[in-house]
Amino acid sequence: MNEFMQAAIEEARQAVDTGQGGPFGAVVVHDGHIVGRGHNTVVGSKDPTAHAEVNAIREASRVLGRFHLSDCELYTSCEPCPMCYAAAYWARIPRIYRGATKHDAAKIGFDDRAIYEDLARPTVERDIPLVELEREACLEPFRYWKSKPDRVPY
Amino acid sequence: MNEFMQAAIEEARQAVDTGQGGPFGAVVVHDGHIVGRGHNTVVGSKDPTAHAEVNAIREASRVLGRFHLSDCELYTSCEPCPMCYAAAYWARIPRIYRGATKHDAAKIGFDDRAIYEDLARPTVERDIPLVELEREACLEPFRYWKSKPDRVPY
Repeated sequence: MNEFMQAAIEEARQAVDTGQGGPFGAVVVHDGHIVGRGHNTVVGSKDPTAHAEVNAIREASRVLGRFHLSDCELYTSCEPCPMCYAAAYWARIPRIYRGATKHDAAKIGFDDRAIYEDLARPTVERDIPLVELEREACLEPFRYWKSKPDRVPY
Repeated sequence: MNEFMQAAIEEARQAVDTGQGGPFGAVVVHDGHIVGRGHNTVVGSKDPTAHAEVNAIREASRVLGRFHLSDCELYTSCEPCPMCYAAAYWARIPRIYRGATKHDAAKIGFDDRAIYEDLARPTVERDIPLVELEREACLEPFRYWKSKPDRVPY
């Protein structure tokens, strides 16, 4: 058994044991060591973003003290949902190892197919309508950002 | 000027003022009141998931004490990226008001088109390879979850 996936599975079991959330776990590995662990805590922390991968990425970033994890790998007990996949993308994680598939997850009630389908639609046709409001005023902070010579890109 | 979008814009300005992150702000509104505010803090908190919408949703969930925000609306100074859109989806937010578009954001260096394109591809063809590992072992926590009569769906 791969030791890092084993750790992700232990996290997943812990989520169920403690009633914190769904049966999902993840770890972030840097240089052969686990630098971030996480399991789903949506129920326990009452935080809809607290998926295993997001929790593990947040911990790894805290431990390493940086927001780019381009020298790390993510091990997750189940294929990441679009939120978690995009989180890995923003973190520049170059490789993900996954255990169960999204089809396995759908069979126990966690189906993210609707989110995939929704993201592929034009914004006006999505399940969550995206309504334009005050666009011109919202461009002002963009100009402000561009005018700051010490801005940090990410 | 819409007062809630005005608040989102103030958050965006604050992100730039303080050097916390990109020029993005968001608020979550419940029953005519702001219950969550957030601006991008990726740089300041060294957290790649700390986008404005995620921060605002997390605060609103904490304030209201629940992980479903189906009676709330999200106001964001810029169209949400796939991570933030999926976060709103998981939170069951039924409507999003957005100021700037993703095209406006791309012009100042924040381009999420690659993430959209990537999410539309089969997992084996993605920018971040998804490698299967220990799938059978990862199904065990799923069975454990199904066996728990007190599990909380979300």
